[in-house]
Order: sequence, then C-alpha cells, then structure tokens
Amino acid sequence: MASGQYLVPASLFLLCLVSTAVSHSIIQLVSGDRKIRIDDDLYCDSWRFSVETNDAGYWSTVPARCERFVQDYMTGERYLSDSEIVAEDSLAFAKSVEIAGDGRDVWVFDIDETLVSNLAYYEAHGFGSEAFEETTFNSWVDLAEAPALAPSLSLYKELQQLGFKIFLLTGRDEKHRNVTEKNLIYAGFTNWERLILRRPSDEGKPAIVYKSEKRSELEDEGYRIHGSSGDQWSDLLGFAVATRSFKLPNPMYYIS
Amino acid sequence: MASGQYLVPASLFLLCLVSTAVSHSIIQLVSGDRKIRIDDDLYCDSWRFSVETNDAGYWSTVPARCERFVQDYMTGERYLSDSEIVAEDSLAFAKSVEIAGDGRDVWVFDIDETLVSNLAYYEAHGFGSEAFEETTFNSWVDLAEAPALAPSLSLYKELQQLGFKIFLLTGRDEKHRNVTEKNLIYAGFTNWERLILRRPSDEGKPAIVYKSEKRSELEDEGYRIHGSSGDQWSDLLGFAVATRSFKLPNPMYYIS
Repeated sequence: MASGQYLVPASLFLLCLVSTAVSHSIIQLVSGDRKIRIDDDLYCDSWRFSVETNDAGYWSTVPARCERFVQDYMTGERYLSDSEIVAEDSLAFAKSVEIAGDGRDVWVFDIDETLVSNLAYYEAHGFGSEAFEETTFNSWVDLAEAPALAPSLSLYKELQQLGFKIFLLTGRDEKHRNVTEKNLIYAGFTNWERLILRRPSDEGKPAIVYKSEKRSELEDEGYRIHGSSGDQWSDLLGFAVATRSFKLPNPMYYIS
Repeated sequence: MASGQYLVPASLFLLCLVSTAVSHSIIQLVSGDRKIRIDDDLYCDSWRFSVETNDAGYWSTVPARCERFVQDYMTGERYLSDSEIVAEDSLAFAKSVEIAGDGRDVWVFDIDETLVSNLAYYEAHGFGSEAFEETTFNSWVDLAEAPALAPSLSLYKELQQLGFKIFLLTGRDEKHRNVTEKNLIYAGFTNWERLILRRPSDEGKPAIVYKSEKRSELEDEGYRIHGSSGDQWSDLLGFAVATRSFKLPNPMYYIS
C-alpha cells in the first residue's frame, strides 16, 4: 500500500456504485421516456388545438396515436383546469349582464360533457379512439350516474343566483327524459326552467340545426339568450346564437 | 481487518460519492424546477385554451405570470406544430372545393401572425405582456422584414395552384400599403389578387365590422369566399363569413 493512501471496505464502495447506477438509470429513464413520448405529445396537443378551435372540422375518432394523450388530458389536471377557466370566463360575462327581472334572461346549457361527465364510459371505450356505439352509450345513459362537472355545477348555481333562467338543450332523445332528469338531480342540478330533448320530428337533423331551431323558438317566446355553454361547436354555432358562447373542452368526440 | 473483508482506495470511494451526489442533485433539480413551473404552466395553458376558443372574450395583455409560458410556446416547437396542423386542415378543405374556373373562387388571408410573423417585435416587447405601443409597432412594420410563417406560405402557394384567387385583408392602414407589399414579397408571397387595407373611412370600426364589410363587398362583386385564415377571431367572425374559417394560433394579442 502506498503511503498516504486510505482504504475503505469494498462493500461500502459497492453500495455507492449501485446507488450511482440507480441514479443514472433514473435520469436516463426519465429523459428517455420523455423523448419517446414527446413526438406524440407535440402532435396530439396540436391536434387538440385544431379540434378545440374547430379548424379540424368533422372528425370521427381520436387518432390512435393520441389515445394516451387524451387519457392523460382527461384524467389529469388539465381537463379540470381548462373547465375551470371557462366557468370563470362565463361567470365574468354573466355578472356583466343586466338582468331585467322579468324572467326572460336565459342561459342555455348542453348536458353531456357540459353539465355532467361521461368520462367513465369513455374510459372503457378508448377515450374516443373507438367508433361510437349508440347501444352501449344508451345503456350508460340509462344508469343515470354521470357525475357533475364541478366547475359547471358552480356556474349553474351562480347563474341562478344572478337571476338567469336555465334552459337545458341536449341532443339526447325524448325517450331519455326520465333518466336524464334523474341523472341531473343525482349530480346536483335543480330548478332548470325547461329540459329540451330531440323529438321524433328532430330526427336526422344535424345538431347545429336542431339546437339553432330550439334557441330560435325560445327567442320567439320572448326569451333573451345571453349565454350558451357547450362542449361541441354545434351546441354554440348556427343561428339564434347566444350573445356570448362558451366552448367547454372535449377532445374525445365531435358532434356535427 | 476482518477476514474476507475487501478494501478499495478511499479516493475511488470519494469519486463515487461525488458522482452519486451529483446524480441526486440532478434528479432533485429537475423535479424541483418542474414543480415550480408546473402551477404557472397549468394555468397558462388553460388561459391559452380560453383565448384560442374565444371563451375569454376581449383581453388586453398576456397575464404577467404567463409571459414565460408564451415565450416558450412561441419560440419552441408548439407554435410551429399548431400552425402546421391548421395549414393541413385548411388544405384538406381547399382540396374538397370544386373550383369553377371563373376566377371567382376566393381564399381570404389576414397578414400579421397569419402570413408573416412579427415575433421579433414581440420578443422585444414581453411577448404580449406589455401594453401595445402603436408607434414602435409601426416602426417595425416600416422595416418590412417580418418573415413568412412557413406553413402559411406553403398553403398560400398550394391554394394558388388549386386555382383560388387570394385576397389579403389586413387591419393595417392604407398608408402602410407600400411597406406591406414590400414585406410580402420579401417573405415570398406573390400574385395576390388584391391587398385590402383600412382606409380613413374605416377608422374607428371594430376589426370584426371592418373585415365583415370588406368580405361582403367581395361577395357583392361575385366572389365566392370558400376559406378564410386569420390569427384573430375578428378576422373570421361577423357577417359574410367564409364557408370555412381557420383560426391560427396567437396567444400574444387580441384584436376585437
């Protein structure tokens, strides 16, 4: 042994080597994992931009490569954060509206992915990456168990406090009226002015036409539609549109 | 020394300890740094959602806490990726249009942040977190050096190939016609059918009104406006709207 050279037990050195190796592996795993996911995340976030702005137009299913992205988005913090900011924007506008007090100041809400969440159904169906199955979705609807979207429930209650009459305008069929009312009450929504569902005479109409016609009828009755909330552009666009419309996030499906 | 106990030089052990400490620090630094930024990133990405969907309505400046987010978005990969997907959506629609061949099939483009990029100006002005200064912006415009947004330049050329007439409709004033033409040519844009700028008679009109009026005048001339591209909702909405409108990304500023 050279003079001045200190020695330590090899076991201690071995322990240190293992610790270093583990740390290096963690660093590599994190950066490697991130590199692998970055391409899909970048593309899919842009895809999400294109659907939320309606630039994409009609689309039938979530691209296969984006199923994971949509899952992360919907089940992580971002979906809730986006929903909260829309509710804030909506409330800020609602507070600026002069309520006449004649019961004619209205806010229109869609139901699915606007007031209540069908995420549990979509979790079992590829988060929108699978073709829509009406039968299984109707079975889910019949359970009447979709929970409230919390930011929407808060907004709903605040609007009622401010004096808005709430009209619910959904693409669900009239035959689902009972289970829809049951689900709304289960989720905490009460005292809506009217619940409008598709009747047989509305069959085959594109959603944007059906919803525009219904809003137009409300206007003919003398109602003033100040705000409209929906996760689909077809909830908001067309004719007889609200003074302000609020697009809620939904990268899972598109209804024309 | 106990029998069977091996020994290594302390210097080697010391080297291993340092290496482990550095690895641990890297892991902590990365996760710590990410934790600090996560709150702002989450909020700012939701703020971005609210402005790109127009849920936010009018806004004057980027929130201070989001300046860094907007900088990262604009100078990183995401802005380009989002711009590319919008160009793809636009081209897919354009290819579905039946061009009559009478020279009346039109695509309308805005200019700033749609055909050319003023990012260099905004980099020096807080990426939109500072109040807009007309004087310094006009000085930038006079340089006529704004580069093309590459995806828009590709789309522009493809549309011309398909037989669309290109109309440029900008909120810039008529006094900037020469420098605007010079900038467009510098950036690679050629053979537009018409360049429309604000005239004195358009002064004071909200952008959404000015642009709707100009599109309406084109329709009166017999033009069919199939597509409209703009980074502002006021480029796209109002009346005499295009068959399909394409919202380009812009989290830096909002024009009513």
